[in-house]
Amino acid sequence: MPGITPDLLFPAEAGQRALARELYALVESLPIISPHGHIDPALLAEDTPFPDPARLLIVPDHYLTRMLLSQGVPPAQLGVPTRDGDPVETDGRTIWRRFAAHWHLFRGTPSRLWLEQTFRTVFDIDLRLGPDTADEIYDRMAAKLAEPEFRPRALFERFRIEVLATTESPLDDLGRHAKLAADGWGGPGGRVITTFRPDNVVDMEFEGWAENVAWLGELAGEDTGTYPGYLAALRRRREAFVAAGATSSDHGHPTARTLRLSDAEAAQLFDRGMRGRADAADAEAFRAHMLVEFARMSIDDGLVMQLHPGSVRNHNRWLYATHGRDVGGDIPQATEYLHALTPLLDAYGNDPRLRVVVYTLDEYTFTRELAPLAGGYAALYLGAPWWFLDAPEVLRRFREAVTETAGFYNTAGFVDDTRAFCSIPVRHDVARRIDAGFLARLVAEHRLPLDEAAETIVDLAYHLPKKVFRIGEPLAPTAPTSEGSAQ
Amino acid sequence: MPGITPDLLFPAEAGQRALARELYALVESLPIISPHGHIDPALLAEDTPFPDPARLLIVPDHYLTRMLLSQGVPPAQLGVPTRDGDPVETDGRTIWRRFAAHWHLFRGTPSRLWLEQTFRTVFDIDLRLGPDTADEIYDRMAAKLAEPEFRPRALFERFRIEVLATTESPLDDLGRHAKLAADGWGGPGGRVITTFRPDNVVDMEFEGWAENVAWLGELAGEDTGTYPGYLAALRRRREAFVAAGATSSDHGHPTARTLRLSDAEAAQLFDRGMRGRADAADAEAFRAHMLVEFARMSIDDGLVMQLHPGSVRNHNRWLYATHGRDVGGDIPQATEYLHALTPLLDAYGNDPRLRVVVYTLDEYTFTRELAPLAGGYAALYLGAPWWFLDAPEVLRRFREAVTETAGFYNTAGFVDDTRAFCSIPVRHDVARRIDAGFLARLVAEHRLPLDEAAETIVDLAYHLPKKVFRIGEPLAPTAPTSEGSAQ
Amino acid sequence: MPGITPDLLFPAEAGQRALARELYALVESLPIISPHGHIDPALLAEDTPFPDPARLLIVPDHYLTRMLLSQGVPPAQLGVPTRDGDPVETDGRTIWRRFAAHWHLFRGTPSRLWLEQTFRTVFDIDLRLGPDTADEIYDRMAAKLAEPEFRPRALFERFRIEVLATTESPLDDLGRHAKLAADGWGGPGGRVITTFRPDNVVDMEFEGWAENVAWLGELAGEDTGTYPGYLAALRRRREAFVAAGATSSDHGHPTARTLRLSDAEAAQLFDRGMRGRADAADAEAFRAHMLVEFARMSIDDGLVMQLHPGSVRNHNRWLYATHGRDVGGDIPQATEYLHALTPLLDAYGNDPRLRVVVYTLDEYTFTRELAPLAGGYAALYLGAPWWFLDAPEVLRRFREAVTETAGFYNTAGFVDDTRAFCSIPVRHDVARRIDAGFLARLVAEHRLPLDEAAETIVDLAYHLPKKVFRIGEPLAPTAPTSEGSAQ
Repeated sequence: MPGITPDLLFPAEAGQRALARELYALVESLPIISPHGHIDPALLAEDTPFPDPARLLIVPDHYLTRMLLSQGVPPAQLGVPTRDGDPVETDGRTIWRRFAAHWHLFRGTPSRLWLEQTFRTVFDIDLRLGPDTADEIYDRMAAKLAEPEFRPRALFERFRIEVLATTESPLDDLGRHAKLAADGWGGPGGRVITTFRPDNVVDMEFEGWAENVAWLGELAGEDTGTYPGYLAALRRRREAFVAAGATSSDHGHPTARTLRLSDAEAAQLFDRGMRGRADAADAEAFRAHMLVEFARMSIDDGLVMQLHPGSVRNHNRWLYATHGRDVGGDIPQATEYLHALTPLLDAYGNDPRLRVVVYTLDEYTFTRELAPLAGGYAALYLGAPWWFLDAPEVLRRFREAVTETAGFYNTAGFVDDTRAFCSIPVRHDVARRIDAGFLARLVAEHRLPLDEAAETIVDLAYHLPKKVFRIGEPLAPTAPTSEGSAQ
Repeated sequence: MPGITPDLLFPAEAGQRALARELYALVESLPIISPHGHIDPALLAEDTPFPDPARLLIVPDHYLTRMLLSQGVPPAQLGVPTRDGDPVETDGRTIWRRFAAHWHLFRGTPSRLWLEQTFRTVFDIDLRLGPDTADEIYDRMAAKLAEPEFRPRALFERFRIEVLATTESPLDDLGRHAKLAADGWGGPGGRVITTFRPDNVVDMEFEGWAENVAWLGELAGEDTGTYPGYLAALRRRREAFVAAGATSSDHGHPTARTLRLSDAEAAQLFDRGMRGRADAADAEAFRAHMLVEFARMSIDDGLVMQLHPGSVRNHNRWLYATHGRDVGGDIPQATEYLHALTPLLDAYGNDPRLRVVVYTLDEYTFTRELAPLAGGYAALYLGAPWWFLDAPEVLRRFREAVTETAGFYNTAGFVDDTRAFCSIPVRHDVARRIDAGFLARLVAEHRLPLDEAAETIVDLAYHLPKKVFRIGEPLAPTAPTSEGSAQ
Repeated sequence: MPGITPDLLFPAEAGQRALARELYALVESLPIISPHGHIDPALLAEDTPFPDPARLLIVPDHYLTRMLLSQGVPPAQLGVPTRDGDPVETDGRTIWRRFAAHWHLFRGTPSRLWLEQTFRTVFDIDLRLGPDTADEIYDRMAAKLAEPEFRPRALFERFRIEVLATTESPLDDLGRHAKLAADGWGGPGGRVITTFRPDNVVDMEFEGWAENVAWLGELAGEDTGTYPGYLAALRRRREAFVAAGATSSDHGHPTARTLRLSDAEAAQLFDRGMRGRADAADAEAFRAHMLVEFARMSIDDGLVMQLHPGSVRNHNRWLYATHGRDVGGDIPQATEYLHALTPLLDAYGNDPRLRVVVYTLDEYTFTRELAPLAGGYAALYLGAPWWFLDAPEVLRRFREAVTETAGFYNTAGFVDDTRAFCSIPVRHDVARRIDAGFLARLVAEHRLPLDEAAETIVDLAYHLPKKVFRIGEPLAPTAPTSEGSAQ
C-alpha cells in the first residue's frame, strides 16, 4: 500500500519474506470488500466534511480512550460525551495533545499500527506522534480535512472500496440508504449497503424493548402486539433491508445459545416480555429461539446470518453510568459453541442454502469447537477474528489454529467491523499481510505450492467475502454445486 | 522418507533447517511403533488386496467426507453407505473425480499432506491431484493395487512397521488375531497385536449395552447378570486379550470423570442399568467408576490404560441418522481433567506400576492441567495430540506447551490412531519432522546441546512409545528404578 | 550475563538475533528489582553460609522433586522431609548423584535452564551435569559455598539486586526484617523488604484459622473476637508491615472471586467461622469479601495488592500426607476473572490510587479476559506469567497474547516468585532475553522503531516494576497525571 513500509508485518526470515512480498503483491491493490462494519451511512449519504482530527480519530475510538483510562486518564478529558451533559474537554487540539502525550502506551498494539499507517497513507504524514509533533500533525491533518479530496465519497473512491455494508436496526427508516440509492451509491448491488441488526427488538433486556417492538409494528404496518404479528413485522423489515441492498443480518448476543421453541411457547415468552414480566432466563431463551427463527427466514430471503456472541456489555459500570454504551467498557467472556448451536444446527446445519458466519472473542475455542464445526456443517463459516482479536498476532494464530481442520474455504474473509472510516484500508492491508506471511510459511515448509498459495490469497482477500456474503458472483469452486445439497 | 520433499515441514530459517535435517536423519528410517489405531485386523490376517483407490482412500476417511459436506457435497455422493440402504454413489472413478474437483478445500490441512505424500511414497505418483489428473492418478493407483507388492502384508514390511496395535471390543472373538498368531504375525511380542476397548460393555448409553453385557458373559463363561460376575468376565476377556498380544486398554468417554464407588454402590448402578432404569447421571457415574476399576485391573495384569475423553459423538444428527457412526459427525467439547481424574489419582496416581496415557481434543488444557498432572504423578503420561489436533501446527504447539512442565519423558510418543493403513508411514514421518524442527529450535536457541537433542528425538520416535506401552524393553533411564516406587 | 551463552534464547533468524542482542545489551547489567518472592529473610538477616549443594538446590525445589516423582522416584529419596519423621535420604552427595542420574528428564524445561546457568554464572562451573560429572560439580560447588564470597549478602551484592521483597504472614513478628533494618539492609526504601500475605488469617479453610485469628489479635493488640476488631488488627499489622518496608500485599486464593458484603453480613460469616460452623461456601464468600476489604485498605495505606488465584493446593494427596505443603503437589485449575472480579472493579476498578496486580496459572484467559480487563481498568495490572507458566515459551506467548490489547504498560514487569536465591539472576535474565526477542521481532516486522523498543525494554526490566510496586519513583509518563483520576 503506498506510504506503508513495504515489509510491514512480513516474517523476518529472508526466504519467507520474499514469498510474502510476492503473494502480497497479488492482493495489495485489490478492491476492498467490507461486508460488516459500523460506519454511519450519513457520512456517505451527505458526504459532509470530517470534523477536526481529534473528533475524527480519537473521541469516537474506544480502543484509544479505554487504553488511556487504563492508565488513569478519564474519557472526559478526551472529549467523550457524558450522559448527563457534564462538561468534557471540547478543544480538539487539547485532546490531541493529551493523547499524543500517552502515545507510548500503544507500542505493540494494533491501534498504533492503524493510526500510524492512517497518517501515512491517508494524510501523507510520516512524522512520529509525540508531544513535539502533536501540533504539526494536527495542523497538517486539519488542513487536509478541509480539502474536497478528503470528503467521505472522495476517500471511498481513493480507498478502492467496492462494497461497504453499514449496520442498522429494523427501527431505522433507511432514509440515508434511500439517499445513497438515489445518488447511485446504494441499493441492491450498490457500493453502500445496509445490514439487518435486530438486537434492540429481539433482546428483552435491551432498554425500551417493548416500546421498540411497538415502533417496529408501526414501521412495518403489522400488529406487533402478538407474536405472529411480531414475526410478520420482522419479515417486512427484512424485505425493506433487502430492498436497500442488505445481504446479511447481524446478531449480537451475550452467548451463542440457540433454542427451538414451539410457536405456542415462543408466543408465551413474547407475551410475558411485553407485559414486562420476563426474567433473565426468559430473555435468554427468547434470544436463543429467535436465532433459529431468523435462520428460517434466511433460508427464505437469502440474508446471510452473522452471529457475534460473547461480549459482556458495560462491564465497566462507572464508565457506562458516566458515558453510556460503546465507549470501551465491554469485556469478553468464555463462549461455548458446541452445545449452544446444536438446536440451530439440528434444524438447518446441513442446508447449504443457509449461511451462518460465526465470530468469537474467545480464541480458546478455535481448534476445539469452531474449526471442527465449520469443517463439518455446510451452513457454518468462521468470521474473521473480532474486536479484541482483530490484530496481527491473533490474525496469525487464527490461521495457524483453524486451517488444519476447517481449511481456508470455511472462513469468511476479513471483516473490519469498524466505526473508523479512515482506518478501513489499513485494517484490510494488515489482514492481507498476515495471510501473505502465513501462506509464505506454508510454501517455505513445502506444504503448499506457490501457485496455489497465490490463488488462495486472492480468494481470501476478494472472492471469499463476496461469495460468503452473497455479494456479486459466488466463488465457483466452493459454491454448492449442481450435485445438490446435503439435506 | 523416500519420495518426500527433503525439507517438508522444517523451519525455514537456514540454521534451524540444517539442524532439523541432521536430527531427522537419525529417525527417518527407524521402524514404526504404532501402539494405538483402528486398522481392521482382517486386513492383515487375510492379506486380501485393497479395493479401488476411492474405496481405499476416500469413502472410509471421515476427514475427507466431512470437509466436502462442509461445502455442501453430501457423503452419499462420495459413496458413504446409508443406514437404510438408500442408494449412494458406487462408481469409484466418479467418487474420485468428484473428490478431485474439491481438492483445493484441503489446502493447508493435514489431509492434503497425508494424501499427497501417500501418493508419492506409497504409489510413486508425483502428480498434483485435480480434475485434469484425477483419472491418471486413479488408473496408476488401481494398477499398483493389483500387484502383490501392494497387498497389506507386503506394505506392512515396506512401511517398516515393527508393531501395530489394532483395537477390539471384549465381544470380539479375536479370531483374526488367532489367525495372525498362527501365521507368525501376532500374539504376545508379535507384529500385530490387539487393544482392549470395553466401551460397548461399560457405557450404559451405548446401543444394546445390556445385550452386550449378556454376550460378554457367554464369551467369558461368567454370569454377567451380577456385578461381581461382570467384573470377573471383564478380567477373563482381558486375559484373552493379553494372550492375543495386547499391552494396553483404551477407553473412549465423553468426559475424563473418574469415581470410586463401593462395591455395593457399583452393584446397584449396574443392576439399575441392566433393568434399563439407569439415567444419564447413572451412566456417567458407572463409566467413571469403571475407569478406577480398570486401573486396579491394570495394576494386576499390566495393561497400559489409554483414556480418550471429550468427543461428543454424532453431534451432526442428520449425518448420524443418514450414515451412522464414525463418518465425521463428532465434535470435541471442553474437557476438564484436574477434578475429573482426582479419584483415580488418589487411588493409584503415584504407583509406577500403573500407566495411564491421557489424550485430549482440547488443547486449551495443555499447560493448565495436562502438563502439570503428567509432571507430578508417576502413573500419568501425555498421549500424542489426537484427531482434530493430529496435524503439524498442533504437534508443534503441543511440544511448545507441555515440554516446559512435563518434559519429553512424560509424553508417550506419536500415535497415529488411524483407520487409513496407507497413511501410517506419512503420519509418523510428519510427527518426526515436527519434533526435529522443535528440537532444532531448542538447539539453535542454545537451550539443548545437539547430542542430547539427538538422543531425545530417537527416544521420542522409537524408545518412548515402546517403553510407555510396554512393548519390548523399557527405556532404561526413565524406567522406575531399583530405588523403588513412590507408593 | 557473564558466563551465559551470549545468544541464549534469542531468535535464530540473523536479523532478529542482532536486534535482540542490541536490545538485551541495554538491560543485561541493570539492577534486579524483585518485588515478589519467597526467599527466607533469615538468609539475609543472619547471612549464614548455605548448606551443601543438594540442600541448597535440590531438596527445597519442588520443580525438581515433582519431575522425579513423575518418573517414579519418591521425594524421600531426594531428602524431602516427611511429616511424621519417617527417615529420608540425608546424604547430600547421594541425593545429588541420584538427581544427576535423572538429569535428562529436564531437557527443554526451565529447571534445566535455571540450574545450568546457575552453575555457570554463580559457581563458574561449565560442566554438563550427569553421572560422570556429578561428584566434580558437587565438590566444586561445596568448596565455593564455604567461601565468604558465597555468603548470602555477598551474593546479593554480586547479583546486583536493588530490592528484594520477601513474603510474611501477619503472624510473623518481622524480627528478621528488624535485624535487616538495624544492619542498614531493610526497612522502608531498604534493599530487603517484606510483603503482607494474610491467607492464614483470612482463609477459614486454612488449618488452625481460628487460632491464627486469636494470635493475630494478640500481636496487634486488638480484640479479634469480633469482626470490627479483626479488621482493626489487620490494619495494625499492615502498618507494621509498611514500617518494615512492605509496598505490597499478596493474596493466594483458589479462585479470583470477589464479593462486597455489608458489615453485618461479613460479621455473621466471621462469627460462623470462629464458631467452627462455616462451610466451604462461607469460606469462599469470606475470602471474596476480604479481597474487597483489602482493596479499601490499600487505597488508604498504599499497599499494592497482588492476587494469585487458581492453584488447587495439595492435589496430590499422598504427597501431602507424606511430605506436607509446597512440595510439588499443587495443580492449576481453570480460572474465571471477568465475573469474579466484578464486585472489586465496580467498587474501585477506575481508581488509580489502587493497584491490583493479577497473576494467572491459566494462560487460556490471556486474550479473552486478562488483557481486556487490564487495558480497560485503571487499577489493574497484569503480573508476570507465574509458576508453571514461568518459562521461556510462555513468557513469549504472554507478550504475543496480551500486548495487542493491554500494551506493555499495563503489565507489571518480571517477578521471579522464587524460593531459590541463587536462581534469581538467571530467572530475570531469561525474562529480559525473551522480551528482547519479542521486541526484536516487532522491530524486524517494522511494527516498532528501534529507539522505542530500547526505551520499552528498559522500562520492562527496571522502571515498570518499581513504578507498579511503588518502589522508588513512579515511571513518569505512565503515572496518573495531574490531569486527575477517573473516579
